[in-house]
Order: sequence, then C-alpha cells, then structure tokens
Amino acid sequence: MDEQAEKFRVVRLRSRTKEHVEDFAVKETPLTIFLNGEELVTLLCTPNDLSHLAIGFLATEGFIKKREDIKNIELDREKGIIRIDIKDLSGMAKENFTKRMITSGCGKGTIFYNLGDTLGCSIIQSRMEVSHEEIFNLMKEFQKSSLLFRKTGGVHSCALCKDCKILKSKDDIGRHNALDKILGQCFLEGISTYDKLILTTGRISSEILIKGAKWGIPIIVSRGAPTNLAIRLAEKLGVTLIGFVRGQRMNIYAHPERVMVNNG
Amino acid sequence: MDEQAEKFRVVRLRSRTKEHVEDFAVKETPLTIFLNGEELVTLLCTPNDLSHLAIGFLATEGFIKKREDIKNIELDREKGIIRIDIKDLSGMAKENFTKRMITSGCGKGTIFYNLGDTLGCSIIQSRMEVSHEEIFNLMKEFQKSSLLFRKTGGVHSCALCKDCKILKSKDDIGRHNALDKILGQCFLEGISTYDKLILTTGRISSEILIKGAKWGIPIIVSRGAPTNLAIRLAEKLGVTLIGFVRGQRMNIYAHPERVMVNNG
Repeated sequence: MDEQAEKFRVVRLRSRTKEHVEDFAVKETPLTIFLNGEELVTLLCTPNDLSHLAIGFLATEGFIKKREDIKNIELDREKGIIRIDIKDLSGMAKENFTKRMITSGCGKGTIFYNLGDTLGCSIIQSRMEVSHEEIFNLMKEFQKSSLLFRKTGGVHSCALCKDCKILKSKDDIGRHNALDKILGQCFLEGISTYDKLILTTGRISSEILIKGAKWGIPIIVSRGAPTNLAIRLAEKLGVTLIGFVRGQRMNIYAHPERVMVNNG
Repeated sequence: MDEQAEKFRVVRLRSRTKEHVEDFAVKETPLTIFLNGEELVTLLCTPNDLSHLAIGFLATEGFIKKREDIKNIELDREKGIIRIDIKDLSGMAKENFTKRMITSGCGKGTIFYNLGDTLGCSIIQSRMEVSHEEIFNLMKEFQKSSLLFRKTGGVHSCALCKDCKILKSKDDIGRHNALDKILGQCFLEGISTYDKLILTTGRISSEILIKGAKWGIPIIVSRGAPTNLAIRLAEKLGVTLIGFVRGQRMNIYAHPERVMVNNG
C-alpha cells in the first residue's frame, strides 16, 4: 500500500495548538498509454492496477471489443508508460476519441448526445433484483473497505458486487479511473458485468452513468448525488440509479422496480 | 436558482419505509466554446456564470493573456454555445491544448511536467499572511454559503477571499469549473488574484494546484485531501497548501510561514 501513498511532514493545527506530524498523501502519477506504438493519452491516476485501468479505458472508449483484440500489454512502471498492441485499430474509435469533451467530472467523458455513443448503450432489460438491506449492508462494508482512503482521505472507491458480496474494489484519485480499473479487470478476466451492481463513493454525472450503461450494468449505487442528466439517462437507458445511500437511507432516482423492500 | 436544479420524483427509503417525494438534482449541461469561429471544446457544467467559466478556461489555458485580447463574447444559453473572438490566436496555446492530458481529476489538466506549463508558473513570493482563526472562520462561512449544495448535494464550491471576507463564491458540478468561474470573473473585472486566498470543497490534485499557481494565488485551502504531487508542486512553486480544514483542525502541507498562529 505504501506504493500508493507518500509520507510528508505536515504542520497540524488543532485550534491554536501547532504540532509537526507525519501524514500520508495519496500518490498521483501520470500513466501514458501508447496504442500500437502511438501515444494516445496520459491519465493522472493512483499507481495501482495500471493494466486494468488502461484496458478499462480502451474498452470503454471502444478501441477494443473483446479480449482477443489485445496482442500485447507491456507496463513500464518506472516511466509511467503502458504499451498496448491491439489487432485492429478502429479509425472510428480514434476519431470519436479526439472529438471527446473536456468534462466537468473527470475528463474521460464521451459526448452523451453523440449518436455513436448513445447507440453504444443498449437499453438495459436485466431482471436483476436487490433488497434494500443488501444495498445498506454493501455500502456499509464498502465504506470500511478502502485502506487507502483511511490512510489518505484522498481517493474515490468503486466496487463490483453480486449476491450481497463485494467481488472487486478499486481506489483511485479519480472516480472514473476507479470504475475503469474495475471494468478493465472484468474485461481481462472475462467477468460479466450485466448481472452486477456497482457501488461508488463519487457523485453520478452523465459520464459515469453512460460508462456503466455501456457495460450493461443494471444498478448503480452511490453515497453521493446524481446530476439531472444522469437521472434522465438512467430513466432512458433502463439503469436503476440510487444515490445518497447513508446509514439507513437512500434515494432511488430511476427504475426502482429492481429494489425490493421487505416490509417485515 | 431553479435554473441550476431540476425537480424529480424520487423514491426515498428510510430503513424499510418507502415514500414518494420530490427532490432536486443539480443541472449538468454542455457548454461548447467556439474560439474565433472554430469549435474548441465542450465542457459539462452547471449552467450559471457561463461567460466567466469560458473566459477562465481560455485564460488558464493560455489562449488569452489580458482583457483587451477579447473582441467579443456571445452566449447562446439555449443552444449551450459560447462564441468568443480574440485578437491573436496563439498557435502555441492551441498546440499545447491538443496535447493535453485526459486526467483523473477533471479533465482540464495541463501536463504538469510539460515545460511550457511549468514555465507558466513563476515561483510565488507573496508576503500575504492569514491567521489560523481567519481560515477556520472562512471555511465555516464558506460551507454555509452554497444554496445550490444545500438543495442538491451535488456541487463543488470555490471562493475567492481576502481580509476575512469571501469576495466571490461559485458552484459547479466540477471542481475545476468552479475555480475557472472565479478566475474568469477576476480576469474580466480586473480583480487581482496574487493577493487572495482560494477556498475549495474539492480535493487538491496537481491540476488544481497548477491552475492556482498560474494565477499567482499564494494560499490554497481545502476541506479535502491533497495528492502527493500537489504537495510537491506547492513546495516548489511557493504555494501555501492547506487541507482537511474541518472544525478547529487543519493540516498545512507546504509553506506554513504564511499562516500566523496566535497563541493567546
């Protein structure tokens, strides 16, 4: 874990008492993705799960569709470079990519009203169901699970869940990166996402919603608030969107039919 | 304020009690900047202070250096378009812009190790001082000040302060946008930034630090955590970096000499 946090000398004030202490800050490092030898993008991220991050990013952006598309992955941790070779570099994906938006949330946004993107999201018709207790319990466990957050207070976390269990949990300085790390691991290990629930500590913007919908995730749950655009997209794309899960409370913003409330 | 929030029908669960309520979600809309007739970028943002946002963005990115560079600003709120005409479109700024990183934090990152950028930040030698009480009081007032946050829980806020007063305060779904709105207003109204303090609700990543440093802001204060890179840059660039300001506590990560602690 020390690879993801750095120790600093800090002046801590408590009221007017000053003390010199040591404290940890989360690491932020650049990761440059070279795709088939060409520099594609540099992400600022927390330096763990870097292959998952890069693959999740490329898959979400439409550069790769299936595991077999990947010919080679070569991570140079020291230099902050990952070289990925893929079979067919779709001109379309590249063009869409360069047209991307610079966004409010995290900069990995795809243009939600872009036709290609919207078509990339089929309407989710999953019959997956969860109980309200399951959501409360998962969020409780989730919030305790990030050691890096407890150490630095500086990361977002994202978790993939099924049947009352957290299957994978990832941290990053960016909300999007944490989700991409999860998705990248699912992609590489052939783990289905259409029958899973995603938990996130971050707010739900249109981009996070679209990212989840692209992967067919039927239920997205957050401690934080959604934006109006995320709610509208969730309604349209068939995603159950739950926000403000805190203690024994939650708000269901779209498709509440997947949440069973046991009255007894 | 209703222009910045939308009302939704929400299913609210408290324990196992289900009720249908109305609740507000913060608005997220695209703003496309056309610079001298050419489409430059689309930001996802909260639809207020859009001219300030666009100008703050352009100035931080190096497209404009002084107010006189701007020939015309034309905002079409309906279409989510702002057309800005400037005197000289620097090829350098445009080239740097297209090389930008997609970043963890908010996607408006400039490459911190990019020479041009680093040169864009002079070392800050301001003798500005603040007392610890001033910081505690400002943060207390700041946290009460955002009506949009209280209504939606979905925005970051950023404030410009001097002499124990909050001079400007802006909200946005993105941390970067909120800061750009402040900086854009300062740019347009000729308000100096080198003698001011910035408060933010968001975490401090390298990009936020660089953005502040570019504008000569000597003190950056957050409720949240900084990253290791932000701390290192603050040390190097002469910025006083304060995090985790909560109640009567704070951590000073870099250049504590600007914070006076009154012992009595």
